[in-house]
Amino acid sequence: MLVVMHSHATPPQIEGVVRAIREMNLTPHPMPGAMRTAIGITGNIGAVDPRTLEVLPGVMELIRVTKPYKLASREMHEADTYVRLPQTVIGPGTFTLIAGPCSVENEAMILRTAEYLRKHGVNLLRAGAFKPRTSPYSFQGMGRDGLKILAKARAETGIGIVTELMDTDNADAVEEAADIIQIGTRNMQNFSLLKRVGKARKPVLLKRGMSATLEEWLMAAEYVMAGGNYNVILCERGVRTFSDHSRNTLDLSVIPPVKKLSHLPILVDPSHGTGKRDYVPPMALASLAAGADGLLLEVHPDPDHAQSDGAQTLDFAGFEKLLDSLRRLAGPLGRAMN
Amino acid sequence: MLVVMHSHATPPQIEGVVRAIREMNLTPHPMPGAMRTAIGITGNIGAVDPRTLEVLPGVMELIRVTKPYKLASREMHEADTYVRLPQTVIGPGTFTLIAGPCSVENEAMILRTAEYLRKHGVNLLRAGAFKPRTSPYSFQGMGRDGLKILAKARAETGIGIVTELMDTDNADAVEEAADIIQIGTRNMQNFSLLKRVGKARKPVLLKRGMSATLEEWLMAAEYVMAGGNYNVILCERGVRTFSDHSRNTLDLSVIPPVKKLSHLPILVDPSHGTGKRDYVPPMALASLAAGADGLLLEVHPDPDHAQSDGAQTLDFAGFEKLLDSLRRLAGPLGRAMN
Amino acid sequence: MLVVMHSHATPPQIEGVVRAIREMNLTPHPMPGAMRTAIGITGNIGAVDPRTLEVLPGVMELIRVTKPYKLASREMHEADTYVRLPQTVIGPGTFTLIAGPCSVENEAMILRTAEYLRKHGVNLLRAGAFKPRTSPYSFQGMGRDGLKILAKARAETGIGIVTELMDTDNADAVEEAADIIQIGTRNMQNFSLLKRVGKARKPVLLKRGMSATLEEWLMAAEYVMAGGNYNVILCERGVRTFSDHSRNTLDLSVIPPVKKLSHLPILVDPSHGTGKRDYVPPMALASLAAGADGLLLEVHPDPDHAQSDGAQTLDFAGFEKLLDSLRRLAGPLGRAMN
Amino acid sequence: MLVVMHSHATPPQIEGVVRAIREMNLTPHPMPGAMRTAIGITGNIGAVDPRTLEVLPGVMELIRVTKPYKLASREMHEADTYVRLPQTVIGPGTFTLIAGPCSVENEAMILRTAEYLRKHGVNLLRAGAFKPRTSPYSFQGMGRDGLKILAKARAETGIGIVTELMDTDNADAVEEAADIIQIGTRNMQNFSLLKRVGKARKPVLLKRGMSATLEEWLMAAEYVMAGGNYNVILCERGVRTFSDHSRNTLDLSVIPPVKKLSHLPILVDPSHGTGKRDYVPPMALASLAAGADGLLLEVHPDPDHAQSDGAQTLDFAGFEKLLDSLRRLAGPLGRAMN
Repeated sequence: MLVVMHSHATPPQIEGVVRAIREMNLTPHPMPGAMRTAIGITGNIGAVDPRTLEVLPGVMELIRVTKPYKLASREMHEADTYVRLPQTVIGPGTFTLIAGPCSVENEAMILRTAEYLRKHGVNLLRAGAFKPRTSPYSFQGMGRDGLKILAKARAETGIGIVTELMDTDNADAVEEAADIIQIGTRNMQNFSLLKRVGKARKPVLLKRGMSATLEEWLMAAEYVMAGGNYNVILCERGVRTFSDHSRNTLDLSVIPPVKKLSHLPILVDPSHGTGKRDYVPPMALASLAAGADGLLLEVHPDPDHAQSDGAQTLDFAGFEKLLDSLRRLAGPLGRAMN
Repeated sequence: MLVVMHSHATPPQIEGVVRAIREMNLTPHPMPGAMRTAIGITGNIGAVDPRTLEVLPGVMELIRVTKPYKLASREMHEADTYVRLPQTVIGPGTFTLIAGPCSVENEAMILRTAEYLRKHGVNLLRAGAFKPRTSPYSFQGMGRDGLKILAKARAETGIGIVTELMDTDNADAVEEAADIIQIGTRNMQNFSLLKRVGKARKPVLLKRGMSATLEEWLMAAEYVMAGGNYNVILCERGVRTFSDHSRNTLDLSVIPPVKKLSHLPILVDPSHGTGKRDYVPPMALASLAAGADGLLLEVHPDPDHAQSDGAQTLDFAGFEKLLDSLRRLAGPLGRAMN
Repeated sequence: MLVVMHSHATPPQIEGVVRAIREMNLTPHPMPGAMRTAIGITGNIGAVDPRTLEVLPGVMELIRVTKPYKLASREMHEADTYVRLPQTVIGPGTFTLIAGPCSVENEAMILRTAEYLRKHGVNLLRAGAFKPRTSPYSFQGMGRDGLKILAKARAETGIGIVTELMDTDNADAVEEAADIIQIGTRNMQNFSLLKRVGKARKPVLLKRGMSATLEEWLMAAEYVMAGGNYNVILCERGVRTFSDHSRNTLDLSVIPPVKKLSHLPILVDPSHGTGKRDYVPPMALASLAAGADGLLLEVHPDPDHAQSDGAQTLDFAGFEKLLDSLRRLAGPLGRAMN
Repeated sequence: MLVVMHSHATPPQIEGVVRAIREMNLTPHPMPGAMRTAIGITGNIGAVDPRTLEVLPGVMELIRVTKPYKLASREMHEADTYVRLPQTVIGPGTFTLIAGPCSVENEAMILRTAEYLRKHGVNLLRAGAFKPRTSPYSFQGMGRDGLKILAKARAETGIGIVTELMDTDNADAVEEAADIIQIGTRNMQNFSLLKRVGKARKPVLLKRGMSATLEEWLMAAEYVMAGGNYNVILCERGVRTFSDHSRNTLDLSVIPPVKKLSHLPILVDPSHGTGKRDYVPPMALASLAAGADGLLLEVHPDPDHAQSDGAQTLDFAGFEKLLDSLRRLAGPLGRAMN
């Protein structure tokens, strides 16, 4: 933390800030300069709210230095985190595909998709039983009946299940059915929900909020980890900008900073990130090249009749073509597809 | 809904789209132009997901026309909504202040603030018992003990209580304690929570999400109203932009469109919107002039020692000065302060 | 400037940074903390590019502290700047209207508008002879013929002229015709143009760039002032965000920080800021209440047949109604309309 | 164009809009629906400003349909554009590197870099003689002396020159020295400059504006092409968002839509896009995988002592490592490096 004093700040004003810092049980380091004095602060800053220093007389600005996340940070935990599942492992050096329809629509379609994916070497199925929809009049998902269908697909094919949890009321049921519990973009700062999945025995896939900074995203991961669940997988899915060329702006540029600042794995969801089927393959390949640890992909046997998100969903032929391209790229990039 | 065909689209492609529209039980209206054909669609579009039309051969773009909100829209409900409370009424022609500390910190401070506000003609107290904090290590609020203190303040002073609900687990308790249930910015699209307060017997103050478009905000209100609770109050609190001159970018420009497209009242929270005490009074006056129906203000007997948000909180002297300015402006603007 | 070292940084790495700072003829101030060392820097930082420190071994982050603008900053120049024109003065305590059509369309319409404005006490006419249009196929303005019409309006009515300069080729002609030279939002960082108007003998109205931070805006003003022209008037005209409820997001929240950090006057353009005639009056009133020093307004005798921007332009009746409201508000706010 | 009427619009209001459309010499297509009437418009819309329809009584909204760009659009010109230079060709199937320092600093360094690049198979050198700097106090480039150095490097090594033009005053000199004329991000809507390079005999590299939509970017290209210069190369260099994890948000997601809507080639500048040396290689690889036609890269013999942008500049060793990775990826992606 650094307090920047006004260039006209008087010695008593500087002394006042120094005193206020000491009252917070922190250590002030005044640095007189040609133009102005700045005062560095060391000590356990997390315990206080130093924003009040900003309103002391003579203070121009308060600049925060230390990152507030600890468990999620690479500084504290240098080794990469690998999330180990019964079916596969997610982390650097590998490249994991999670594929499937937006929603659980019926049993036949889920079983068919699960078998298809397994046959093509994909070990994790995504499909929503609880659907966060912008409109209260849209299909809201099959709910617990959907979870039963997913459990059946798992039992019959051995595929792992990734499915979204929207509220604490359904937490036990989703935790039971899922191999990975997904937290959606609109719930990235639903702190009550984050605390609940911090107690879960299953890994958490944490989608980035629509306008979340990297720090806020890692703080959301910190909420889960502070509860004792260290198996957090980040997932970039497009952010909100002024741009209107696609549904969201898929931010692949966040991947290198995530890898630098955190040890957690990161996946990319190019289906929601672009909102258009045609744009999914190039962005999927770019995600692999940029260093992502895998993809979340919408795939459906008949996307033109899907109950939701059909326009951004690949059919089986499109998926196989993409799979082929990904495999050709993984080798030169030193990555093992799984 | 309008389907814009590619300029090179063939007659069979156009016919294919027309047929697909009819299969959805909608009516196509082809409009051949010099450059290209566009196809208007009428009928009950809400029942289907027409985004799949976008991937048919020859289609260039799909343009949505009708707004998806109904109960929240002024087209459907021309008269302004007035939210009537035991202590006051919120809606056009009036200007309502809701003031108080960020958090319930202890009983003495809440009682003192409630008495102070009542003495100055303010009828609604805001204070959080449950606090959504970016960091899991920050003060998370007093919880149910906080609600008890608020109930006591209400009983002793008659002041109305505005307090935040963060999850369904505490919904009954907050509904009991509050005169207005606040839904925070991070929960604007927590659809499970919106459904719950749609069943509540108390009005809902719905803060705008950090990057919510006006349509998404009104759709969140629609969720609450679709549950049967028509007493929704919107609250602008700053959105996320590239700008760094204040904590958020307080978007007063949303007020006239809200008034045009919806019949719901709208308040402004300049404390969170600016994040700086000094910037609160000018933005509060501007909110009144722009047509807002009231303000949500952070006021604290001793903001420099507040447990949260002190830097953006007015002290009593600052609040009185602002109150005075607001009263001088309300008259010429034809508004009654309450 | 503050260099934040990695928590694992070794003493030789810290020493390396200290040495590199000294090589830049700056003074290092190492501050060892519990977690990490930070190194403050004092001295004439403007002369070097310290971003290269960021890539030294053991460095985590580089944090800039001092503001790069000097002439535009209130720290360096405490007293408010008043821009004095033959017709009026612009600055705190007053409220100046600059009104007129988007483009110079013909002589009759400009003369009629100038006379009308003078009759209603408005002393400055805005109208573009050179028009920055998004499309090369749109009307590009009357050019130098338009300047002649403006000169005639000035000669006949005494009204002051505010008109845009788009390139250095026309700088002499615009400088001759204008009382205030307008620099448009798309040219806010056209540094060649800024240098040219820094040599002009007329005040400069500097519109904020569509995605300019406050610092970048003040740096653009600094370019003009560094050339010797201290008469700079800032003008907020809406920024680009994710929001789609109006043409741009008019950012009134920038007004208090502008007043805090700079001594320059600031106007608001609610016509371009909203893009809709109906939204102009509430945002105009809000600008006054927020502390702006005046407005730039699009007014046209027959906006429905204007050659550009008709949808956001007030007709005379609408303008008079707004004028009336502004006058009723100016008094209680302690401002003199001019 | 589509006019959406209010659900309460009266038949005379609808008739009024139909009449106004006919007065504009356009053809109205009324479509009565269950809820409301919409009116399609066909004809030569480019010639009028139909935004005025929006303010007619009973009109709710005006929705634009046709894209305003023609020469830059793939609909009008299906075949990919290849920009042919003496040294190489830029367009699909190839992958072109343009590398070099931010600024021309002195002759020795430019010659050394040019020779180095040629030796490694790079045919185009980037280096700025005119530098757009945020601060008037920063190094502004060597100007015409810099152009002479570039000409010498070209003469001695045969390397092609890519250099920025900032104003019309220096247009002849830059056109003479450059193989490709660069228009910087801050000048993307400097329409006077665009018109000038529309007359140039050299290809134009058009960087995307900091907050430019895809349509605005293509309209800027249209300005150049409308002047007769069809050799336009687009260059993505990061846009401005709320994100702070890098200097800008490099928007690779724009590549597939550019390829769909336009026939022009597109390059990516990951150096400016990320602002950090470490992040350049992953984003460079991702650009190739996403379908970009090449890269603009900052490379310097001694970046830690570069006069500008050192923190985002690769040294020769870093560049060679990246070159190697790009070459390994180009094959599987079916691209020829040049």
